[in-house]
Formats: sequence, C-alpha cells, structure tokens
Amino acid sequence: MEDARISDLRARIDTLNLDLLRLLSERAEVAEAIGRVQSEVGLSHYDPVREQRMLDALTDANRGPFTDTVVKSLFKQIFQASMQLEEQQDKVKYLTSRHSQSADTVVTVGDVPIGSQYAPVLIAGPCAIESREQVEAVASLLAERGVRLFRGGAFKPRTDPYSFSGLGEEGLRIGREACDRHGLQFVSEIMDASNIAAFEEYVDVLQVGARNMQNFTLLRAVGRSRKPVVLKRGLSATIEEWVMAAEYLMAEGNDQVILCERGIRTFERYTRNTLDVSAVALAKLETHLPVIADVTHSGGRRDLLVPLTKSALAVGADGIMIEVHPNPAVALSDNKQQIDFEAFDRYLAATLYDTKLTAKRTELYGF
Amino acid sequence: MEDARISDLRARIDTLNLDLLRLLSERAEVAEAIGRVQSEVGLSHYDPVREQRMLDALTDANRGPFTDTVVKSLFKQIFQASMQLEEQQDKVKYLTSRHSQSADTVVTVGDVPIGSQYAPVLIAGPCAIESREQVEAVASLLAERGVRLFRGGAFKPRTDPYSFSGLGEEGLRIGREACDRHGLQFVSEIMDASNIAAFEEYVDVLQVGARNMQNFTLLRAVGRSRKPVVLKRGLSATIEEWVMAAEYLMAEGNDQVILCERGIRTFERYTRNTLDVSAVALAKLETHLPVIADVTHSGGRRDLLVPLTKSALAVGADGIMIEVHPNPAVALSDNKQQIDFEAFDRYLAATLYDTKLTAKRTELYGF
Amino acid sequence: MEDARISDLRARIDTLNLDLLRLLSERAEVAEAIGRVQSEVGLSHYDPVREQRMLDALTDANRGPFTDTVVKSLFKQIFQASMQLEEQQDKVKYLTSRHSQSADTVVTVGDVPIGSQYAPVLIAGPCAIESREQVEAVASLLAERGVRLFRGGAFKPRTDPYSFSGLGEEGLRIGREACDRHGLQFVSEIMDASNIAAFEEYVDVLQVGARNMQNFTLLRAVGRSRKPVVLKRGLSATIEEWVMAAEYLMAEGNDQVILCERGIRTFERYTRNTLDVSAVALAKLETHLPVIADVTHSGGRRDLLVPLTKSALAVGADGIMIEVHPNPAVALSDNKQQIDFEAFDRYLAATLYDTKLTAKRTELYGF
Amino acid sequence: MEDARISDLRARIDTLNLDLLRLLSERAEVAEAIGRVQSEVGLSHYDPVREQRMLDALTDANRGPFTDTVVKSLFKQIFQASMQLEEQQDKVKYLTSRHSQSADTVVTVGDVPIGSQYAPVLIAGPCAIESREQVEAVASLLAERGVRLFRGGAFKPRTDPYSFSGLGEEGLRIGREACDRHGLQFVSEIMDASNIAAFEEYVDVLQVGARNMQNFTLLRAVGRSRKPVVLKRGLSATIEEWVMAAEYLMAEGNDQVILCERGIRTFERYTRNTLDVSAVALAKLETHLPVIADVTHSGGRRDLLVPLTKSALAVGADGIMIEVHPNPAVALSDNKQQIDFEAFDRYLAATLYDTKLTAKRTELYGF
Repeated sequence: MEDARISDLRARIDTLNLDLLRLLSERAEVAEAIGRVQSEVGLSHYDPVREQRMLDALTDANRGPFTDTVVKSLFKQIFQASMQLEEQQDKVKYLTSRHSQSADTVVTVGDVPIGSQYAPVLIAGPCAIESREQVEAVASLLAERGVRLFRGGAFKPRTDPYSFSGLGEEGLRIGREACDRHGLQFVSEIMDASNIAAFEEYVDVLQVGARNMQNFTLLRAVGRSRKPVVLKRGLSATIEEWVMAAEYLMAEGNDQVILCERGIRTFERYTRNTLDVSAVALAKLETHLPVIADVTHSGGRRDLLVPLTKSALAVGADGIMIEVHPNPAVALSDNKQQIDFEAFDRYLAATLYDTKLTAKRTELYGF
Repeated sequence: MEDARISDLRARIDTLNLDLLRLLSERAEVAEAIGRVQSEVGLSHYDPVREQRMLDALTDANRGPFTDTVVKSLFKQIFQASMQLEEQQDKVKYLTSRHSQSADTVVTVGDVPIGSQYAPVLIAGPCAIESREQVEAVASLLAERGVRLFRGGAFKPRTDPYSFSGLGEEGLRIGREACDRHGLQFVSEIMDASNIAAFEEYVDVLQVGARNMQNFTLLRAVGRSRKPVVLKRGLSATIEEWVMAAEYLMAEGNDQVILCERGIRTFERYTRNTLDVSAVALAKLETHLPVIADVTHSGGRRDLLVPLTKSALAVGADGIMIEVHPNPAVALSDNKQQIDFEAFDRYLAATLYDTKLTAKRTELYGF
Repeated sequence: MEDARISDLRARIDTLNLDLLRLLSERAEVAEAIGRVQSEVGLSHYDPVREQRMLDALTDANRGPFTDTVVKSLFKQIFQASMQLEEQQDKVKYLTSRHSQSADTVVTVGDVPIGSQYAPVLIAGPCAIESREQVEAVASLLAERGVRLFRGGAFKPRTDPYSFSGLGEEGLRIGREACDRHGLQFVSEIMDASNIAAFEEYVDVLQVGARNMQNFTLLRAVGRSRKPVVLKRGLSATIEEWVMAAEYLMAEGNDQVILCERGIRTFERYTRNTLDVSAVALAKLETHLPVIADVTHSGGRRDLLVPLTKSALAVGADGIMIEVHPNPAVALSDNKQQIDFEAFDRYLAATLYDTKLTAKRTELYGF
Repeated sequence: MEDARISDLRARIDTLNLDLLRLLSERAEVAEAIGRVQSEVGLSHYDPVREQRMLDALTDANRGPFTDTVVKSLFKQIFQASMQLEEQQDKVKYLTSRHSQSADTVVTVGDVPIGSQYAPVLIAGPCAIESREQVEAVASLLAERGVRLFRGGAFKPRTDPYSFSGLGEEGLRIGREACDRHGLQFVSEIMDASNIAAFEEYVDVLQVGARNMQNFTLLRAVGRSRKPVVLKRGLSATIEEWVMAAEYLMAEGNDQVILCERGIRTFERYTRNTLDVSAVALAKLETHLPVIADVTHSGGRRDLLVPLTKSALAVGADGIMIEVHPNPAVALSDNKQQIDFEAFDRYLAATLYDTKLTAKRTELYGF
C-alpha cells in the first residue's frame, strides 16, 4: 500500500533507469571501438591523462545534486567497466581462473594423477634430506605403504643464517636415487632460479616455498620449466595474492601447478600456524588447479595431523603433504612436528580406514 | 667412535645429573611442605619478595661460568616447577579441562543431546527475529526438515548504534511461541545481564556472542543460570582466552556449556572471517565440552556453507549453526549471508546425504 | 599525436558523458523527492525488494555490450549514491564525526582541559588498587610531580576467572579518598552497567576497557552518565569500530568522550601489543574527540615507554596513560610492565625536558 | 611476622639452592670442556641422541615429587643453558646484535652519513622510473630542496604478472644519469641475484623489498656486494625475522645495512598498512644498524605522511623514505599514495620547520 506520490516518482525513476542503460550501452560500444583501434596501433587501453580530462569536464558541468566526488566516483566505475570490456576483447583472462578454463586441471606426476575426480594423493617424507640412510629408511617405508610421492628438502629456507640449510645438490642426488630405487616421485623445494638445471635433472616436482611465494624472479624461472610445481601459500598472503603467484607460473607457460595451503599466521599460540580450510575451498572455486594441504606446517602439532587431514579432505583437498622422519628427536630441523614410522602407521590407519574418508578412494596410493 | 676425552667428561656429567635430580627432588619436597603450611594459614603460595631475595642470594654466590642472568632464569624455572606442585596440592584444576573431567560433557537441550557420541545437531534460523510471520515460516520449515533447534536474535549487537538492534523482549516472545508450536528448542543471544529473567522465561539456550566473550559481568550472570549456554569465540581471541571464558561460566556453576567457533579475523578479503578448524579440534582435545561451528559467520559467503560444514564435521564438531531466512534480500541484517528455503534444502541434501558425513549419524535431526 | 579515429570516437564519448551526467542528476533529484516522502511517512529509505525489481527490469532490457553482471554492478553504485543523498537529507550525521562538529572537543576533568590546543595530560597510577598504603604512596608522588589525573582499577577484567579481580567498591573508596587528599582527578574502569551509581559517586572519569569496547549495554549506560569517559580501543578493533563505539556514548548524550589507543594485537612476540600511531592520527582526523595513548599496555615493555610516549605525542596525542606502582615486583597484576617511582622520575625527565616535546607545553601537569 | 615452620623450611630451601648452584656450575664447567673438544674435532655441540639418553636416565631415576615431564623440562633448560655457554665459546654472536657491537653503525652513502648522531636523511623519488622526463623533473626538484638521496624502481614487484613491472636495466641507466646530473645518490630495488652486476654499475644503494625479505638467495648475493643496502621489513615479519634477514647480509660480509620499517599488515581498512613505531625503537635497541621508515607505504594515505614522519622521527628513526611524482594521477603504479611537487613542498614545510623535529638537525639535507 504505497504512497501515491512515491509510485509516481518511482515510475519516473524507471524511465530514467532505462535511458541511462541505453546511454551506458552506447558509450560502451564507442569505448570498444576505441579499444580496437588502440590494440591495432599498439597503445595501452588505460590513459590516465585522458581520464583526468574527462573527469574535469564532468565536474565542471556538474550542477548537483551529486557532489563532484560522487560524480567522479560514479564515472570512474563507468570507465572501469568499459575498460574491462576492452580487456576482454584482448582476451587477457587470467589463466588460473575458472573463467578461462572451467574443467579441473589434472597434474600428472609420473603416473600419478592429482586433482579433479582422482583420489587424494599423499606426499610424505622428511623435512630435510640429512643422509643416504635416513632417506632410504623413509623411502622404503613409503613405498611399502603404497605412497607414491616422496618429499624432502635439499635446500632449506631458514630464518637464522647459521642454521642447517640442507645438503644442497648432494641432497637432490640422494633423494633421486632413493626415489628411483622405490618407484617414487621426488618433490623438493627450489629456492634459487640459478639451481633450476639441477632440479630439472633430479626432481619430479618443484616446490616453491611460502617465503618465496612472491619471489617473482623464481616464479618466472619455475614457470619456464615444464616440471609440475607445488606452490605454497605465503604465511600472510591473501587468496588473491596466492592465485596471482600461480598466474606468474602459468603466464610463463607452466600449467602443471598445484596450490598448497600450509597454514596462515594468526594470533594463536597453541599452534604454529592455522590451517585455512576456506582457502582450500575458495582456491578450488576460483581456479581450476589442484589444491593440497600441508598438515605438518599448518598445525605444527602431531595431535592435529589426523583432524586437519580429515578436515582438509572434507573441504575438497586433492592431496595432503606430511613430514615423516625415522627419528624426529634427532632431526636437524622441525623436530617437534615430524612423526616417526610408528606414528605414521597410526596416521594412515586413522585416515585411510575411516569410513568418512574412504568413500571416494579406490586405490591405496593416496589414502 | 667417540673421542675418549668426551666419554670421560660425559660420565662425569651423568653423575652430576643424578646429583642434581636428588637435590631438586628434595627441594620440591620442602617446597610442598611450605605450601601445606601456607594453605593452612591462608597465605598465597606466590611471594615475589621472597623469590627476589633467593635470587639475590644466588647471584651473590654465583662464581660462573653461568652468567647471573642464566642463573636467575634456571632458578625461576625451578621455583615455578615447585609452585606448580603446590598448586596441584590445592587441586586448583580448571573445570573446563580434560584433566578435571576426562569424559565428554553431553549438554541436553529439551530432549536433544549435544556432544560426545551423539549425532551432530543443526541449529538454524534467521539472524534476527523480525516479525511473527517470518519466524513462523522458518520454524515450520525447520520442524518439517527434522531440525530441532531454532536460533533467532531478539537483541542484536550492532557496530553502528543507529542500525536495527532487534525487537527486544517482544522478539523473545515471538520466538518462544513459534518454537512451542513446532516443538523446537529456542536459542537466542543475551547481551545484558539485566535481561536474564526474560531469557530464563522464554529461551532454552542462552547464546553469548563473540563481542561479549570477555564481558565478564555477563559471563558470571549467565554462569549463575542453569540454562545451557552457547559461548561464541571472540573474533581475535586465542583458544586459551576462549576456554577461560567458558571457565567463568563453569566457575559460577553452569556446566551446560557449548563452545562455538565462528571464524576469526584474518587478512583475507574474500571472506568475512576465517573458520578455524584447528580451534574446534583443540577445544575438543583440551576441554570436555561440546564444540559447534557457525558456518554462516565464519565464511560470510553462501558458496562456502557446504564445504565449511563438511570440514567442521570432519574435524569433530558436535553441531553446526546456520542462518536461514524466508527472503534474505529484505532481511534487516546480514542479508548477504543468510540463505533462503530453497538453498537450505540444497544445503541439507549436500551435507545430509554425503556418504562421508552420514557414517556416524542415525537420526534425521542433526544431519 | 593521436590517431584521428580515436579523436572522433573520443568526441562522441565526451558527449555521452555529459548526457549521462544530466540523466544521473535528474535521477538523483527524483530519488531525493522520494526520500523526502519516505521520511515524512516514516519509511526506511532502503527497500531491497524495489531495488531487486529495478535491477530485473534493467537486465531484461540489457542488450549488451555490458554483461548483466556489469549492468547490475553499475546501477547498484547509482542506487547507493542516490541513497547517500537521501541519508544526508535526514542529517544522520555521526555525532563523533568532524562533519557534524569541525572544532576539537575539549573534555574538562575537574579543572584539567584535555584536547585541542591544551598541553597533553598525563594519567598515571597503578594497574590495580591494592591497598590504602599503595594508593597513598602513588598519589602523593604524582601530586608532587605535578600530575593531575590518577588512574587505578578497582574492578579488573581478567582472562582467568581465578585471578585477582580487584577490591571492588572498597577500591573505589580508597582511590577517591587519596585523590581528594592530593587534589587529583580519579580515573577508573567500569565493567558493569549495574555499578554505575558507585562510579558516579566516587570516580571523575569512567574508563571503558578494551575488552568491553563492543559491550553495547555498558556503552549505553555510560553514555547516559554525564561523567567524562575514556574509551579504550579493542585489541583487534578497526578504527571505524572504535569510533562507532564512541558514537554509542554520544548517541546517549555523553559528549565528554576521550578515545584511548592502547595497542593492537599483532604477530610480534617482542611486545605485548603494538602501538598504532596511525590510529591516533586518524581518530583525530575523523573525529573531533581528544585521543590519548596508553603506553604501558601498548608495548608491555618498560624500555619502550619513553620512545612510545614521544612517538604518540609527535603524532598528536592529547595525553598519555602510564602505570606506576611503588613496587612492581609484588604487584598483583601486570608486574612486568609497571614502573617504580625512580623509573617514573627518569621517564618524566626523558619526556618532559626533551626539547622536541616541550615546545607546545606551558604547564607542568601534562609534561 | 612469618610462621616459624615456614622460616625453618625456608632456611632449608636456602641451603638447597646454594647446593644446586654449586652442582650446576660444576656441570657447566664440564660441559664447556666437552664443547672445547667438540670444536677441536669438528663435532656439532648439539647431540640429540645423547640428550635423549640423559633424559631417559633421569626419568628412570626419578622418584618424585616432580613428574617425569617436569624433570625433563627442567633438565632441558639446564642442557640448553650449558649449550649456550658452549656456543658463546665459539663466539657465534650475531653480527647485527648490540652484544657484538655496542656503537651505532653509520652507513655512508656518497658523502651522506646515515645513523647514530647524524641528522635524519630523506630518501625521496617516484615509485617507479617511467621516463627520462619524469626522473629529471623529480631529481631536479629534490636537488633544489637539498634532498641527497633519490629513490626510483626499475624492477617493480607486482602481485599481478600483467601489471607494469618497470623499465628494467634501462630504468637503472635513466636513474643513474639523473642522479649524476644533480649530485644525488641512487637507491633502487633489486629483485634478482642475477641482476647484481647491473646494480653494482648503476646504483648507490641496493634496496631489498618487503616481499623478498626472506629470499635468502637474494640476501646472500646482496650480502656479497659492498654497496649499502636498505632492507625492508616483510609485511607480516616479526622483528626477530627482520633482524635475522639483516644477519644474512652481514654474515656474507656486508656491514652497510639500513633497516627500513614500512608498515605491517593489520585488520585496519582505513590504511594500506600500519606503521609499527615500536619496531623502529626495538630495532634500534637490539641492533646497532640505522633504521628508517617508509611513510608512503606504511600508511598508503597522503594525509598521514606528516604525522607518520613526525612519529617515526620522535621514536628515533634515522631517515624517512617517501614517494614523490610529477603527476601521481597518471603514475603507472601506486598512484593513490604518491604526492606531487606542491604537496612535497608542503610536506617539507610541515616537517622541516616544526620545532619538535629540527632540534637535532643542522643541515638541510635530511630535514
């Protein structure tokens, strides 16, 4: 039961809306035409000087009731919308986006498919490669348990410059040999673009660590490789920043990208970091890439490994990364959070045979 | 193949270790005796002046090689360990802790048990109670779908003092009547200790909101009630602070406490808050209380409701809270995140019939 | 040297821009007219159902090149801009805002003016009121040093329910008597609306603590008092939330509001909290209220008291709050961060006689 | 007036304390002797297997009243204290620490000294080097105003791979020429270790950006250069992590390190980042290095440039970095926060002639 005065005024608004739409559409068509010429002659679509002049003309002409600020704000929206049209013409769609590829990407490592409808994979191994014996022990256990991907760091990012920072290239060789002996795929972190040749030789999956998520030089170098990549999310990175880092990889031609959520920095002191399951879900909604979760670093606590694994899988993670060490007490790094072989078997039992998790899994590798 | 000199020195260390242990144990026994006398005569165990004097005596006597700072630090550890023994004598155990009660608490609301081995419950309803019609529509839908707990706010905490802040006591009456008509239990947020009588009359479960998690006056008042309580975690509260807030409730005698994780503030801009599943797991490890997750506020996005629900249940949540409104577009608050009836049915289908979730559920209420 | 085709198209755009501006202005005028009728008949300006219908009509009419999503987005901006105009008509200006009062508010406590061009004040005293002797010692020292405002808590918010939580009303009496003896103004934290009568009797300035910044019941009660208020910023509150909390106070009629920045929660482990000097600057830019900084809680370290004081004053703080205790080692709370009398004198010397700070100060109270 | 029983027991405690001290000191001496042998034969001091065995022996021998957990915890403290002694023998002191160098480091760029008692310096210039004309305009203005250090990015870290990422080496050449013409020192960000030769040729101060603060490869490369370095703090880095990044530079031999606070990520939406003045103070307390503040990025708002500058200088900053652009509206990056020439003059006037700031400044360069 509307006031009659309101009804009349609203009818007037309806007409004005349609008039505005007509003008906006016409304006957009002209802008598209300009965009085509610009592309042809190699000019950038964005011309801030021209934009400033248009805004000046509009505020000169403005007689209210909108303030100049509001007029400028509305027209900036209109300019931006037009420019987006021009950019779509150029097909500058983000390669990582579901808009440019709706189907899930499946990254295949050796003969192990990751992503889409495939069973979640398990990537396990020690934090750091410390010796031939240590790697052999872990690799043979993993192979026996049906795990297909071995992780182990040869170059370790360390906050303190005097901490153990890995065996370097020798570590890569040790890892490669053990993986070959046991039919495993080798995942290892690359920290330096100049090491790319060694990684190409020894490693199956290049890992980019959280601290290097916005090391754009490294991203471009890894993007030029054709090896699959695991890209960890930065400790305080937004999802958008993480996805843009993946875009760096894809922009260089590498489309074998796996995103890895590894916990974000929060105020919590009971955990080292906080697993962000929404980020797993949103990365899968916004991109077509496989997304895995590192349950060792995201909690930093052994008693959270099973619940965080279940939680990550429930939200759609395509895989889990976990640290296993023959004797965590003597590990050269991360010795509070790696688990030993007995604990690893309990972990597998708790996650593998849980009715809630096995439903969509048909093969032992993975879970 | 150890250097002989090292072996000899290590044997000496072994003897010293045992000597130290003997002295430490003797010291602890004397400290316990002091603690008993202090308890008897009503003195506090902690006496900073005495502690300062002991430290002064030790640093006076110190001839190295430890620096005075290290000596003080080591003895402070020893003092603290002794005091913990004294405190254990006093049995000042936190009531919320697994150490004081190992078995899971089951909170029973009407005839609905929450916690332990019981099927997860669903608490659903509109953000705010707006009208008799709105509440009737939601309540009848929920009852039809087998949901047993209805939520709806009559007093709404709002950042802006001029926003709609709820119908007040009239809202409580509307909620009560609808719940009675449909056999539902009524959950509603209390913001003010002075409203406790009205809540006792109309409401089945008192909810303490995130902004009031450290409103100790309110906590004490609610703790004196015998109604079950849902205690939301503060937006930036650590798990310890959250559990201590529950301790306020239990210290006043209310042991019907349900913890509710509702997302923490992070830097993410794609979501309103970030669901912290580790907090659900840790709250269940550290306390014996039921823990539920509010999936509406923790994501603030409709497309995350299903994945966050699955994730929270996988990590062990005893229930889920979700906002449903007949027409979210015209809701007086939270209109971006409430779902309508059709979406609610899709939500139920996606969570109820998922093989991963139904395993331990036998009744329709809940999932 | 622009392509001629571009010049022609740009001329066309210029005309369209002006046509759009004309229509937008006309639409805004009609919307204002609707707003006036709505205000007259008591209707809310925001009508989401009407908005939805307009958007439906527009997307029905849309023939490109904009997608429906872009059309909806642009028109939502237009609707919003119009609604802002309507709201301005209603003069719903926030009372805290510089837009409703451009001149600085000066809050006068006893005969001590705070804010605007007045010298920064110092508010000092112990964390908690523990005994008559303790308060007397501090109050006489402060009076001797020319400090005019005494702070001391009688009701202490404590995370742990079993910690010392203050002497209550007896503490208020002790504080009042000491302040009367020494001509000091008494600042103390109120945690419960039901204590307002006692605070009205004994206290000169009501303090609302960080944990209660969004305790809206308490804010409304304190807002109905005519005593000056110190409103602390919540540990993770945005500046907007903080200012809105002050708006609660002013909306109830209390315009004697002092904002107090006390450090925000960050990831830093060297400090307890992190002083946010931008918040001091922005609070002074956005509101007309005095803003002070609590240098004890924002750093939680004695060695930061002087630098944080200098920093806060440089950014424009109208006062400083600091904790002083006769013997911090035996204090019942906060014993790591309170300073003793000797340190307080060093603090005064370092801040008072520093040439950078004394420039605009003419009286001893303050600095 | 102590209970006599307590007095007696306390006397017993006093004796035990001294016995414990004697044993602890003896144990430390033996541990030092072991450490010397280990250093001699090249063994690591830390031997987790040995430590485990000692703990096992102790818990085997433990008869209470301490639990095994407490015994282990106390002895771990003792082990750690002993190991620290051994490490001190090795003189592994952090080079950045005040403990290894108590006097302030002065970094000299050209003839401009930075740090210690010298007047704060101003480092100004555009976000990105865009053209010869732009750089010439800024450089000539700066030189006229007495500024001595010019900043300008030739390699720009960008979240989005398709954004303008700088002119590269051509940009370095443009910057060098302009600086030579106007007697300015050139500061520019290096993102890639492989560009080090070009930076050595063209640039006076290497800047390591916030995103690269833990790019350890880059840090080591820059550490091997002898050019002064500005090391920005990471967006969510703790102070300890920031200082450890500086330690990487010094460990490689570069002692010309300037720390730069540039704002941390917080929940605040009014600002881009939040200037952390405590970090400036703490970095100066903990290290001997000069510390500057980037007031452009830490606020992201022009209206905060003056207050943040005053605040940073008051807390002891040795310099300020600020972005200036001939026409910010058309800048290719950061166009919301750079200031134009007129605003820069207002900025200089507001900071230079402020009595609070000029006290310790004697020359025009700087302030």
